[in-house]
Amino acid sequence: MLNNKKKYNVNDNSENNSQQIQFADQKREFNKRPTKIGRRSLSRSISQSSTDSYSSAASYTDSSDDETSPRDKQQKNSKGSGDFCVKNIKQAEFGRREIEIAEQEMPALMALRKRAQGEKPLSGAKIVGCTHITAQTAVLIETLGALGAQCRWAACNIYSTLNEVAAALAESGFPVFSWKGESEDDFWWCIDRCVNVEGWQPNMILDDGGDLTHWIYKKYPNMFKKIKGIVEESVTGVHRLYQLSKAGKLCVPAMNVNDSVTKQKFDNLYCCRESILDGLKRTTDMMFGGKQVVVCGYGEVGKGCCAALKAMGSIVYVTEIDPICALQACMDGFRLVKLNEVIRQVDIVITCTGNKNVVTREHLDRMKNGCIVCNMGHSNTEIDVASLRTPELTWERVRSQVDHVIWPDGKRIVLLAEGRLLNLSCSTVPTFVLSITATTQALALIELYNAPEGRYKQDVYLLPKKMDEYVASLHLPTFDAHLTELSDEQAKYLGLNKNGPFKPNYYRY
Amino acid sequence: MLNNKKKYNVNDNSENNSQQIQFADQKREFNKRPTKIGRRSLSRSISQSSTDSYSSAASYTDSSDDETSPRDKQQKNSKGSGDFCVKNIKQAEFGRREIEIAEQEMPALMALRKRAQGEKPLSGAKIVGCTHITAQTAVLIETLGALGAQCRWAACNIYSTLNEVAAALAESGFPVFSWKGESEDDFWWCIDRCVNVEGWQPNMILDDGGDLTHWIYKKYPNMFKKIKGIVEESVTGVHRLYQLSKAGKLCVPAMNVNDSVTKQKFDNLYCCRESILDGLKRTTDMMFGGKQVVVCGYGEVGKGCCAALKAMGSIVYVTEIDPICALQACMDGFRLVKLNEVIRQVDIVITCTGNKNVVTREHLDRMKNGCIVCNMGHSNTEIDVASLRTPELTWERVRSQVDHVIWPDGKRIVLLAEGRLLNLSCSTVPTFVLSITATTQALALIELYNAPEGRYKQDVYLLPKKMDEYVASLHLPTFDAHLTELSDEQAKYLGLNKNGPFKPNYYRY
Amino acid sequence: MLNNKKKYNVNDNSENNSQQIQFADQKREFNKRPTKIGRRSLSRSISQSSTDSYSSAASYTDSSDDETSPRDKQQKNSKGSGDFCVKNIKQAEFGRREIEIAEQEMPALMALRKRAQGEKPLSGAKIVGCTHITAQTAVLIETLGALGAQCRWAACNIYSTLNEVAAALAESGFPVFSWKGESEDDFWWCIDRCVNVEGWQPNMILDDGGDLTHWIYKKYPNMFKKIKGIVEESVTGVHRLYQLSKAGKLCVPAMNVNDSVTKQKFDNLYCCRESILDGLKRTTDMMFGGKQVVVCGYGEVGKGCCAALKAMGSIVYVTEIDPICALQACMDGFRLVKLNEVIRQVDIVITCTGNKNVVTREHLDRMKNGCIVCNMGHSNTEIDVASLRTPELTWERVRSQVDHVIWPDGKRIVLLAEGRLLNLSCSTVPTFVLSITATTQALALIELYNAPEGRYKQDVYLLPKKMDEYVASLHLPTFDAHLTELSDEQAKYLGLNKNGPFKPNYYRY
Amino acid sequence: MLNNKKKYNVNDNSENNSQQIQFADQKREFNKRPTKIGRRSLSRSISQSSTDSYSSAASYTDSSDDETSPRDKQQKNSKGSGDFCVKNIKQAEFGRREIEIAEQEMPALMALRKRAQGEKPLSGAKIVGCTHITAQTAVLIETLGALGAQCRWAACNIYSTLNEVAAALAESGFPVFSWKGESEDDFWWCIDRCVNVEGWQPNMILDDGGDLTHWIYKKYPNMFKKIKGIVEESVTGVHRLYQLSKAGKLCVPAMNVNDSVTKQKFDNLYCCRESILDGLKRTTDMMFGGKQVVVCGYGEVGKGCCAALKAMGSIVYVTEIDPICALQACMDGFRLVKLNEVIRQVDIVITCTGNKNVVTREHLDRMKNGCIVCNMGHSNTEIDVASLRTPELTWERVRSQVDHVIWPDGKRIVLLAEGRLLNLSCSTVPTFVLSITATTQALALIELYNAPEGRYKQDVYLLPKKMDEYVASLHLPTFDAHLTELSDEQAKYLGLNKNGPFKPNYYRY
Repeated sequence: MLNNKKKYNVNDNSENNSQQIQFADQKREFNKRPTKIGRRSLSRSISQSSTDSYSSAASYTDSSDDETSPRDKQQKNSKGSGDFCVKNIKQAEFGRREIEIAEQEMPALMALRKRAQGEKPLSGAKIVGCTHITAQTAVLIETLGALGAQCRWAACNIYSTLNEVAAALAESGFPVFSWKGESEDDFWWCIDRCVNVEGWQPNMILDDGGDLTHWIYKKYPNMFKKIKGIVEESVTGVHRLYQLSKAGKLCVPAMNVNDSVTKQKFDNLYCCRESILDGLKRTTDMMFGGKQVVVCGYGEVGKGCCAALKAMGSIVYVTEIDPICALQACMDGFRLVKLNEVIRQVDIVITCTGNKNVVTREHLDRMKNGCIVCNMGHSNTEIDVASLRTPELTWERVRSQVDHVIWPDGKRIVLLAEGRLLNLSCSTVPTFVLSITATTQALALIELYNAPEGRYKQDVYLLPKKMDEYVASLHLPTFDAHLTELSDEQAKYLGLNKNGPFKPNYYRY
Repeated sequence: MLNNKKKYNVNDNSENNSQQIQFADQKREFNKRPTKIGRRSLSRSISQSSTDSYSSAASYTDSSDDETSPRDKQQKNSKGSGDFCVKNIKQAEFGRREIEIAEQEMPALMALRKRAQGEKPLSGAKIVGCTHITAQTAVLIETLGALGAQCRWAACNIYSTLNEVAAALAESGFPVFSWKGESEDDFWWCIDRCVNVEGWQPNMILDDGGDLTHWIYKKYPNMFKKIKGIVEESVTGVHRLYQLSKAGKLCVPAMNVNDSVTKQKFDNLYCCRESILDGLKRTTDMMFGGKQVVVCGYGEVGKGCCAALKAMGSIVYVTEIDPICALQACMDGFRLVKLNEVIRQVDIVITCTGNKNVVTREHLDRMKNGCIVCNMGHSNTEIDVASLRTPELTWERVRSQVDHVIWPDGKRIVLLAEGRLLNLSCSTVPTFVLSITATTQALALIELYNAPEGRYKQDVYLLPKKMDEYVASLHLPTFDAHLTELSDEQAKYLGLNKNGPFKPNYYRY
Repeated sequence: MLNNKKKYNVNDNSENNSQQIQFADQKREFNKRPTKIGRRSLSRSISQSSTDSYSSAASYTDSSDDETSPRDKQQKNSKGSGDFCVKNIKQAEFGRREIEIAEQEMPALMALRKRAQGEKPLSGAKIVGCTHITAQTAVLIETLGALGAQCRWAACNIYSTLNEVAAALAESGFPVFSWKGESEDDFWWCIDRCVNVEGWQPNMILDDGGDLTHWIYKKYPNMFKKIKGIVEESVTGVHRLYQLSKAGKLCVPAMNVNDSVTKQKFDNLYCCRESILDGLKRTTDMMFGGKQVVVCGYGEVGKGCCAALKAMGSIVYVTEIDPICALQACMDGFRLVKLNEVIRQVDIVITCTGNKNVVTREHLDRMKNGCIVCNMGHSNTEIDVASLRTPELTWERVRSQVDHVIWPDGKRIVLLAEGRLLNLSCSTVPTFVLSITATTQALALIELYNAPEGRYKQDVYLLPKKMDEYVASLHLPTFDAHLTELSDEQAKYLGLNKNGPFKPNYYRY
Repeated sequence: MLNNKKKYNVNDNSENNSQQIQFADQKREFNKRPTKIGRRSLSRSISQSSTDSYSSAASYTDSSDDETSPRDKQQKNSKGSGDFCVKNIKQAEFGRREIEIAEQEMPALMALRKRAQGEKPLSGAKIVGCTHITAQTAVLIETLGALGAQCRWAACNIYSTLNEVAAALAESGFPVFSWKGESEDDFWWCIDRCVNVEGWQPNMILDDGGDLTHWIYKKYPNMFKKIKGIVEESVTGVHRLYQLSKAGKLCVPAMNVNDSVTKQKFDNLYCCRESILDGLKRTTDMMFGGKQVVVCGYGEVGKGCCAALKAMGSIVYVTEIDPICALQACMDGFRLVKLNEVIRQVDIVITCTGNKNVVTREHLDRMKNGCIVCNMGHSNTEIDVASLRTPELTWERVRSQVDHVIWPDGKRIVLLAEGRLLNLSCSTVPTFVLSITATTQALALIELYNAPEGRYKQDVYLLPKKMDEYVASLHLPTFDAHLTELSDEQAKYLGLNKNGPFKPNYYRY
């Protein structure tokens, strides 16, 4: 029987991974990007799949013995258009089904489509986008279309395109240039095909990582004259925009959607609360009850991990550098320790810091036999995995994403995902989280596109609180949740507009 | 046997209460204060005591048949000084013991004293203060003294002075002008005695409610020339400062300590998580398990109430006007409803909104027999209690702070504290929470007093993040909590100073 | 202003207490009772009245300067009957109000009354009862009356009678012999007046502690010929029945209602989950968040305490002797330790063992300054309080039920309720819990009275599972809970009767 | 790279599954077994693996093109013995590694081995066993050997043998007769080879399902003369033993280990608390937060599911038939409803009843689009899946173990594992749970084998409480848990032996 649920897994293959990392580093050098800030947000937003579902998808794709580069193929969709470049336009039907399933779980975008039937808030918008190309992204792109926009799209990652979905978009008339397994040259070629079009010039940019923005800055700086704004979703891309702004080189308004409230809560707290359990269980089949766990870092990710494990009956210790977060950990019932104090006794070590070398070789040397080590944080360097690649230690791959690192005395440390993000590598990001992100992106585009002259200058902005609240409100019907409305009298008493925003900007939720 | 634990309870007496409220309104009118914003923060910070402990304290005081006004008495402390005005200097010993007990639970201030043995960061400071006068305040005042400051003090509330504590402060040489049961005239007279002194002029103000600040503005505006800053702790006082600032009339820097992160978390989330259970239990002896509860408002107070009741086995519904908070309620496992949807079925209604008329007469009419109604929020008007004072309804006081309101058909609603704050009226604020507040005040004074010229202008500031973190760190030893320190390499990687601040200002904790 | 908050507390007075304890010991000696098993269940089952209800009553009583012994008074109720002996029949109206309020919270008994309007399952029953006499008991007695029984009643404790309630019962025609503050002689005289009546002989016994049963055995052994059964509710009484049974001296069937499933869960798990928080808060105003707590014993009481404190943010350690309960503690997320391992670091020590000398002087010597020690368990000897009554330690009563025990170096231990049961001394038993108990008693009486010949022999029985289930089902409407019914097909599949019992006897819930 | 973690998955293949079910039914008929009680316990104890790990294992096995029946092969282990029948003795090395990994997670059995180095409590025992043959079972078998027993072993399920493990056991000298994919004839042949041996006769039976016992009863009834006892682990097998006992046909003592306390808690409460999350996540990648869930049945399994989902932020409703469990659900904070009341609104339906047709076609018709339906209970018939196999409904397999059932109007119900046990089909049983079971079996064998004459008669017994406690105590070191020991004085006070048992048999934990 055909298993036709297809998803994409960036890190399913360690060889490819190491290539990818190397490649990423090369790109960074090439781009003179800061190496300090990794791709956390990007990582969190990728749709992950369980390994098995991936493999069946892969088998479908792989069964094709077509090794021709998409760039060398002549393809047309059923309407005769050839303005796209995907792996195989014939996969469109499979991709369409994936998109339809995703639509069911992204009610907020569907609601936007519905509300836009009269007015088209993106009428006249010409959006060029560069993101992961998944079923959820497709729902976003088609929503932008329904809101009146013209779109052209490329992938922000050489591995993350779901070919069937790209085909479906192309079949529907969206010029998509992307496939799984692009070369670096392909990568920039695809981006170029999106922007370098005769008779069409973008007036909005939706970017994830900053590569598209970078390309336009480098190759077509004049394009910015017509561009009304940039919407950027990744930590890295946002960081670059702030740097441009500081340097006085940002020539259009940009919106940092990475730090919008709703998105942050879902990316970090709510998503990680579930994926820590999922990631540990899928890789190790361990039992949580009674286990001693140390969680390094008590930010939103750490809070999510701690809450979940405590609820499952684990005994959780926390390490922190920030006294306020530390005091929160105390009040939430966790013993605050230095890692050294508990490293000999714990069964699991989880990093959630955004810092590097939080777990050092010295810590690893002192862990007990069977201790599980994993990273839920920001960068790949929270655990000093490099320090484990020494001759006296033996690595044994016991399962996908699971290595036993064996000390000379026989002690085994169970290292998950080679220290890369557990929730990315060994769990999935629920569609609901991706829906929050996509809706945030759509609203940011609408806001920037429709903002009256002067509201936004050549600077980086957070999503206005009111739009942030709107993202949330579009997702309430999923839970059959009923919002209360202020009476006129109450609104006046509180000094608020009945439609929000309801909180000052510094409100901490 | 003598029960000699003495604490103070503002609202133990409904007659006095109504007087107080009336008085507060009069004062407001007199002061042209905004009536919109109530005294929430002030209320939260008052040390409440259980009834029994209060009564013994009262009995001691009451046993004195001394009805002479303190203003008409000639009193001297043991060193011969008469520069104070308290109820009875002979009560000093009892007050000292209360202060000593409080010291044991305020380790952060004691740590500040210790660290200040070499340097005296408030050396030369002349602080005039106007706050509740309780054992905890006394620990603060004496700490300021130990840090090098001279202090003069009045009460910010005509009922909230603990006479024994005021006596103990006076005995120790602090000029205190305050007693329980001041008249309005007494109130201003006391404040005036603090500032209008020959040969002494304040250079710092610590205010709680803004009355002291108001008085100086009105009577001694020239004093501001020497004043380095104002530290204000209440919502009301802060609101007035922002208004002054907007109007361009603020002539010294002011620090809003009400909104510091650590203080807010403790005042609202952590304190209310415990006091909702305590307040309900002390008044009604009810069982929480299985009860259906609706909590109006899912801010920090609402979050605390919901978490506690859920943990005790109640079924909790939430109402919200803000979609972001509403979505948080959903993700935390609460059904989001409009009040009307559940009003007929719930056993308890709790308001935590800061809004008014959240529970209307119409809602009250529809509640089931025995439903408990109470307010954990901001103002006294969240429940429309006034609407219940109609002829067809019978009020029956069944216990202190508990009224049965009886409908013609016999239905009884159980109204707690006449709709005033449950946690103020029927529970206590733990000393630990007051310690957080007092430490925040002390650090704000140190910061303003020592700030280099130009750091602060004639504006209202939040406590600097680093000081906020310092407040937290001073309270970690209470929990035997061990903070992790960044290595040089890590600090560099993160772009942080090793001593903080560790988060950007917009971080939401 | 009159502070009319008055509570009733059996142990509120240490002098009386020591008397009581002494008396209890004397009684025990007199009765040749086993001293091993204390009065846990009895304690748990004492009706703590809600403060207000008692208080209004109390204020009335106290105003009376009547010192005449009730035995020396001539009183008649409004119908002219003098077959009772209470403090003051004129208090009946106040007592009636208390009973009416209790009725609202005891819907199960009220439902029994309703269902009994046609059939009178206790028609012909002549019940003699000996229990605490509180409003809740009154609802039980009047329910038994409504079910057709004649009742005569005495108190099982010389302090626990609520005089107003006794008066109300007498006024309604129930022969009650009981008042607050009986002497020992009064105690037995009252019991005797219940059973030694001309022309009336009991055929059912409802006992709480076994004193009534003991008296009949000793004085009127022939009465047992007509007695159909004994219902006993306390641990002590049940223990004595089992001893009688072993010795072959039990001459009627007896029902142990103490160990019925529903009652046990409420007495221990659900009640203590709430009262541990309440007891600690009322006495110490402490904050639970971040506190380190050790709970000795992980039976139902310990489980309740641990769950509540964990939910409030405390860090909880557990000690256990039973490996199965110990493993449960582990799986529930608590570190299992020996008391010595954590005694120096904890903020609170709670005993829930039923054992003695669990906390020894040696432990107390090692606790840190300010450590709170209390007992939620079975006996008064779990904490070796006697070991603290040595000359070098100073006791200081700082509040009702709170002693500071001070070591020569100044260290203070906070001892609650002198090591007696915290939930009895410093908290309340919710009416709902008492409703479960009273309903269990009523159903046990019905069962024994109506059982066909031969179903019960001269032995001690547990309440039949089906009746236990019925107790539960009568309380479901309180929660608006809707039970599912088996279809015929399902009942057949499961081999069950559609009306229960639904579980085998060994089922562990 | 080789993925060499191998586990076994009974239900990985729907074709095989349907065969198996059919076959199981045939066997039942053949055996005249009761069809009422399914194989729950058996199911729960099977080691499940994640799909991917299974597939690699499978690939290894499958890569062998050896289609010869093991019965037709001549194999010898390295010591020259041929007294076994496995798929391929050359796989022994791989199996040995699996066993070694399992040993690390089964410390209780390893501790038993250690303690047995002096005394051999099973010296002289000749055990014939019939269980699933997995790495964990191998640890048990080799432990029995280390304790002095001789063992012969067959599989209790034609699909559940891990061939490599069987090979490893054979290589180590244990006569094992079992392979994956036996025919029915093979099945009985293997059992027969275990018992029908020249010069060897079993004196102990370890059975899982009752097939081995059945075979001896049928073919070699005289063998029972030398047999000291039967240890049976499954619900089905236990049921048959009770029937034999009732019929007076049980001719040796039997021990029901299925109902031992420790095992039950782990099989049901602790295991399901984790596997419900895992099973749902692996199959659907759903987010738990805010979802509305109805859990049918509030026994141990239901309690585990509810606790886990509540902790993850789901809103949980419960249905129950038993009023006591229903009241527990209320007190734990769940609304108790009839399924009909919430069927239209819930996102997930979970059955945990042991009953049949709990979710009917009528319910399924009323569910909303996208509702997930799964079974955590006892039998395959809790959800009436058969009612969905009608022409108007379309089934679509979207992923392994996930079917969309599509109504004519487009509504999709997501059915997991076709209504079979979710935790069996889509999650894993942690080794720790299997360790509890295996230790229970080992201790039961020791107890029966060493019991003095007369302790056990020809009846079915529960594991003695003391042994049950011993199982628990052997697992405490895993958690670094330290048990408290009674002092002599305390043991005397409580009337207990210092080594247990600590509770009466009716204690409910």
